[in-house]
Amino acid sequence: MNIEKIKMDLILNDDVDSPIDGVQEANTSHTLIDALFNSNTATLRNRVDDSCRKFFTSTDASTDLHIDDIRSKFMQFDAPAQGKSAEAYIDLLDSEVLPHCSHLASPRYLGHMTSPIPQFLPEIGRLVQTLNQNVVKMETSRGMAFLERQVIGMLHREIFRADRQFYEENLQATSSALGIFTSGGTLANICALWTALRLADTAQASESTKALSPDERPVIIGSELMHYSFDKGAQLLGAQLHKVPVNNLFQIDLDALNDAVEKYRQAGRKIVCLVAIAGTTDYGSIDAIAKICDIGKKIGAHVHVDAAWGGGLILSESNRHLLDGIAQADTVTIDGHKQLMLPLGCGMLFFRDPALSQLTMHHAPYAVRATSFDQGRFTLEGTRPATALYLHAALHIIGKNGYDDIFSKSMQRARYMAQTIETRPEFELIAAPVMNILTYRYIPEKYRNKKIDDLDNIQINRFNISLQKWQRQKGDSFVSRTFRAIGQYNNQGLTLLRAVLLNPLTTNDDIDFLLNDQLHIARLLESRIRDTPASHS
Amino acid sequence: MNIEKIKMDLILNDDVDSPIDGVQEANTSHTLIDALFNSNTATLRNRVDDSCRKFFTSTDASTDLHIDDIRSKFMQFDAPAQGKSAEAYIDLLDSEVLPHCSHLASPRYLGHMTSPIPQFLPEIGRLVQTLNQNVVKMETSRGMAFLERQVIGMLHREIFRADRQFYEENLQATSSALGIFTSGGTLANICALWTALRLADTAQASESTKALSPDERPVIIGSELMHYSFDKGAQLLGAQLHKVPVNNLFQIDLDALNDAVEKYRQAGRKIVCLVAIAGTTDYGSIDAIAKICDIGKKIGAHVHVDAAWGGGLILSESNRHLLDGIAQADTVTIDGHKQLMLPLGCGMLFFRDPALSQLTMHHAPYAVRATSFDQGRFTLEGTRPATALYLHAALHIIGKNGYDDIFSKSMQRARYMAQTIETRPEFELIAAPVMNILTYRYIPEKYRNKKIDDLDNIQINRFNISLQKWQRQKGDSFVSRTFRAIGQYNNQGLTLLRAVLLNPLTTNDDIDFLLNDQLHIARLLESRIRDTPASHS
Repeated sequence: MNIEKIKMDLILNDDVDSPIDGVQEANTSHTLIDALFNSNTATLRNRVDDSCRKFFTSTDASTDLHIDDIRSKFMQFDAPAQGKSAEAYIDLLDSEVLPHCSHLASPRYLGHMTSPIPQFLPEIGRLVQTLNQNVVKMETSRGMAFLERQVIGMLHREIFRADRQFYEENLQATSSALGIFTSGGTLANICALWTALRLADTAQASESTKALSPDERPVIIGSELMHYSFDKGAQLLGAQLHKVPVNNLFQIDLDALNDAVEKYRQAGRKIVCLVAIAGTTDYGSIDAIAKICDIGKKIGAHVHVDAAWGGGLILSESNRHLLDGIAQADTVTIDGHKQLMLPLGCGMLFFRDPALSQLTMHHAPYAVRATSFDQGRFTLEGTRPATALYLHAALHIIGKNGYDDIFSKSMQRARYMAQTIETRPEFELIAAPVMNILTYRYIPEKYRNKKIDDLDNIQINRFNISLQKWQRQKGDSFVSRTFRAIGQYNNQGLTLLRAVLLNPLTTNDDIDFLLNDQLHIARLLESRIRDTPASHS
Repeated sequence: MNIEKIKMDLILNDDVDSPIDGVQEANTSHTLIDALFNSNTATLRNRVDDSCRKFFTSTDASTDLHIDDIRSKFMQFDAPAQGKSAEAYIDLLDSEVLPHCSHLASPRYLGHMTSPIPQFLPEIGRLVQTLNQNVVKMETSRGMAFLERQVIGMLHREIFRADRQFYEENLQATSSALGIFTSGGTLANICALWTALRLADTAQASESTKALSPDERPVIIGSELMHYSFDKGAQLLGAQLHKVPVNNLFQIDLDALNDAVEKYRQAGRKIVCLVAIAGTTDYGSIDAIAKICDIGKKIGAHVHVDAAWGGGLILSESNRHLLDGIAQADTVTIDGHKQLMLPLGCGMLFFRDPALSQLTMHHAPYAVRATSFDQGRFTLEGTRPATALYLHAALHIIGKNGYDDIFSKSMQRARYMAQTIETRPEFELIAAPVMNILTYRYIPEKYRNKKIDDLDNIQINRFNISLQKWQRQKGDSFVSRTFRAIGQYNNQGLTLLRAVLLNPLTTNDDIDFLLNDQLHIARLLESRIRDTPASHS
């Protein structure tokens, strides 16, 4: 392939909507290949730039088009026979797709654990996709596979703090891994459970011939706030998932945990894994990791820390104390695409002892060979992109100090929002932020300054669902909602508004805007309810 | 956020190697956020362009640096404290990382199922990452979630050919899905097995209270060439994986399949899934899908077609007949990042009957709500990027006719290579290409024109391993190798050279070059062996 032969702008300067020439006739198909592989993409790039800029400069959280109207725009189900130019395609995206996406880059979108990513990363993404390295095996990645092990090692060291000799021996060892990349925290958690089960050599997980009755199923214990990936994993692996209540700080209740452990041990059941959460999805609360590790050690159970949300703090000198005890865990999940602001798809699982990585090894004869460096031996997934390069780039460009600064600002914003909520009689703060998540709810006027009973809460729940839906539909700002049993209300299930203060572009003004938006909507809602009381009684 | 306020080139025009200013001091941290989120990335973009071009214009398959020397370059394990400029980072990549990657874009790299991707796709990737839509739930994706269902529907229609009313009703239904995106074929296959087990309501998969002894484990049957993801899935799910031999065309032996089915039925075992392979990893061979579907129907077993490799052909009018019978399957895996040349990470699983998607549903209170449109209800994975946009773009820009042309050329190249091999007495063609994979081996001179016995094959195996390793190390061209039992040699295990003719940039000249490269290396190897016979006896 000779770069001199590039057919400039073959796709790009086509007339809009005209198909690529020569798609159907074999004798001109070289034109198609040239257009796809050897063309100058400058025009397309500028078009994509424009689309990205439009998206990045929206301050509203979404359009106000109703979801059913958006849905009606995606009803075509015939795959196109003829191709069109890349420019015509971007026209299609600009008019029919991009306006209907969520404006995650908006500083007033505080709803979920997904924010805009630093702008250098999509450029690195272009490189990742052009290189197209498949890190499942050395023959399709070479240096990139070593780079992947290297960045896994860097985070392993921040988490587990082993000595230099440990990393000199294990960083690039052939026989085991310090951790693996996964497509996300769900798979990382499932792989952790798989590892724990293999370690315990139970029949479901080990293909051994020992029969297990249901009362012999291995047991996994964590708090009721465990991510739903644990339900999936337990179901896949044939394990029993036991959920323990949380205390008023939304951490696992240690007395209840000890009781559960004792109960299963007396029944002769095998507890294969204790789960500690470092950053619950609902509240950002962090379990007492060190104490859970102590219990795990005492009973010989694997301890897994689900730090999908909070794990990034390990890079932050000012905040890493929140994760105290994590160095004693056996496995740790971190999502790079959460606090570390990498593109989606950068889950990671770390093994304190790299020998744990050998418990789930698999090989294949055409590659992923047992005696190779192939990283695919250690992963549940097979073919995988080099997402490690995003982490590598972020560690080098942002650095630990940069992350420290970003996290500290993010925590400050959460505290500001919590303080503002507490000054307003219209709101009730339910969970003050330990990290950068907080939950609260709106209290309609008639329920203020009185003791709220169960029936009141049912009405208040309805009100907050309506409020969140209206705000979402209006599209000027956004928080999510959750539904959880709350201790201070006798474990009644409450609908909570949930703000995730991840977006570094959010200012205190944006927070004020969002709360005022809610107050405005709530007052309208209250007046409607007064007008039509029957519909809400 | 105001686009007018952009601080131009804040990262990009920094002195090389100088850290971003103000990372450590809180009072200047707004500068860091601006640099990461509001900077003009034009300079960085040009640098990435240069790096991409260098990579794309390499004709060699890799550098000739020994793997241990590459490894030694990735031994640093301290995460950087201070960030550096994006330009300095690209310098680092250019000198220390990119030269050591696999040159998958080389037209002489014919080794694995990963090729360069069309150049418009990394530009779409930049958009996917800038939008950062999380398709797990509507609130973080909106229109993009409908687009995902739309392209899944387009391929579903090509596979299953249901009528228009079916798609009008199911394409954007809330309660079920026509298919799901996964991070790859491995997860798609595992989800198919999970679905089959849930359907059969076995204890491991359903959390029911029925006890299973090992002799009651549910049974999955497929050929010995099943991808190793089935081993992983069976282990995870506590099922028994039974592997049936293949015939001389490397398809599942139907008599042996019927015998296995009969054996398990007589033993009272539950067969929950039959697997048909549409494009084996080793040979590209395709099982008799229609016949396997007939057997599945007869015994009430779920039939899954692993078309990770071959499934893309469904878009090709000239080649789709190779997949005849696939419309009768219950579930089908297709990898977009194989024949369809999308970026890595675009696995898909299709359900003929969308009700199957409901068997593995899970919800979470903070989102992924039961009554929503949230796609996360149907997936094993949680948070996922909008990989659907790559497929959407490719379908619109390449179109079915474009894919037809690309596939046909790819098949032609494979036939050309097979014919060339057959004319050379030095090579033995083992598996003629059904699709665009073929396997062969080199026969050293002393084993030609004689009946090859078991001991000869052991020597020939050693020779081919050395040949493949030498060629790989030399780096001018590349094929992979596999090791499989071969019927025509009494099922002796043979080391085979494996060429994957996926790269559209490969010409017949490149194929000639590669074979001549092998002949050249083989002659050198033969002369070395003659000089030092002891080492190879």
